[in-house]
Amino acid sequence: MKGLFVTFEGGDGAGKSSILKIICEELRSQGLSVLETREPGGIHIAERIRQVILDKTHTSMDGRTEALLYAAARRQHLVEKVIPALNEGKVVLCDRFIDSSLAYQGHARGLGMEEVYRINKFAIEDRMPDVTLFFNIEPSKGLQRIASNEEREKNRLDLEELDFHEKVYEAYLQLLQQYPERMRSIDADQPMNRVKEAAMTALQPFLSNH
Amino acid sequence: MKGLFVTFEGGDGAGKSSILKIICEELRSQGLSVLETREPGGIHIAERIRQVILDKTHTSMDGRTEALLYAAARRQHLVEKVIPALNEGKVVLCDRFIDSSLAYQGHARGLGMEEVYRINKFAIEDRMPDVTLFFNIEPSKGLQRIASNEEREKNRLDLEELDFHEKVYEAYLQLLQQYPERMRSIDADQPMNRVKEAAMTALQPFLSNH
Repeated sequence: MKGLFVTFEGGDGAGKSSILKIICEELRSQGLSVLETREPGGIHIAERIRQVILDKTHTSMDGRTEALLYAAARRQHLVEKVIPALNEGKVVLCDRFIDSSLAYQGHARGLGMEEVYRINKFAIEDRMPDVTLFFNIEPSKGLQRIASNEEREKNRLDLEELDFHEKVYEAYLQLLQQYPERMRSIDADQPMNRVKEAAMTALQPFLSNH
Repeated sequence: MKGLFVTFEGGDGAGKSSILKIICEELRSQGLSVLETREPGGIHIAERIRQVILDKTHTSMDGRTEALLYAAARRQHLVEKVIPALNEGKVVLCDRFIDSSLAYQGHARGLGMEEVYRINKFAIEDRMPDVTLFFNIEPSKGLQRIASNEEREKNRLDLEELDFHEKVYEAYLQLLQQYPERMRSIDADQPMNRVKEAAMTALQPFLSNH
């Protein structure tokens, strides 16, 4: 049995991390061997790279330096964790992957999706996800969810933030057009059991070939 | 006065670091403002990235992860140190730059020169060196120099090492063909004062426009 590489994508507040856990349990209950991961995924070298990215004293870090570091951490996580699991025939569920870099750094931060794609292509070679579930929700609704979850006032989320998240959303919609074979849009603005159902339906054809 | 970005390239034992210091002194004695540097060049973020690359416990580091980390450190050193100096009108002398990655990682380590060029292009954008001095010496002679300098037996440099350095050399010769406008080959197999003379002659037209 060959492995299946599934990535979970979406803006903030789309609920992708919660649904990932639910899908993971569902697949395991069906007897499948599943690896649940996210970058840097406990891989020592990738963790070290993340520390450099996230160090709050690194205020002078350039956007391109950051994008190259994310690509480096992605490469190491892929080689040390994802590919070995796929080679063992596992279903790998990964919370965010290349599309997040394209949407956040490429489009919303303005580095250019094509340029960010190129360095990520160097990082992952031909190991694109077999299927990518995009959890689709209007950015303003996603942000409202985060606000209510964290018991903050809605108006704390100012217009600049919304503008940024709208750019991220715009990029994901563009990626859906660009990769119709691997990307599936899941309506995330409905109760969790319905989101799960839609995600499982989208995954089914890929699981059948697995 | 606009800055001038000069990079020093060559295989191991070509003597480029020694000649860099001599050229630096010569240019300063002519009253020019010179920055002498090499990556990571004391730039904190670039130093942190180098620590990740050079950590001896990181035996599982993939070649592509390493190439992305070098490109990230290069970006930060360029943005924080080289470009500001060029903007002040300085002559920047940099020991190794993009061509080293193309020769060592791209060709000798087998990642592909074109591919390594692409991620470095992302890192440096259009800021290629104005002039690159390639210190040209047969790899076997370069290695002999290192061997005699370090008082080691010549035969410690085994054939596998020589083969690697010959690939590096091959790549530099290819780059000379590819970038005739910015690259100058300097015969490094002659006494230091002659190497200095040849390097100064090669630099002269670029300094005149500086």
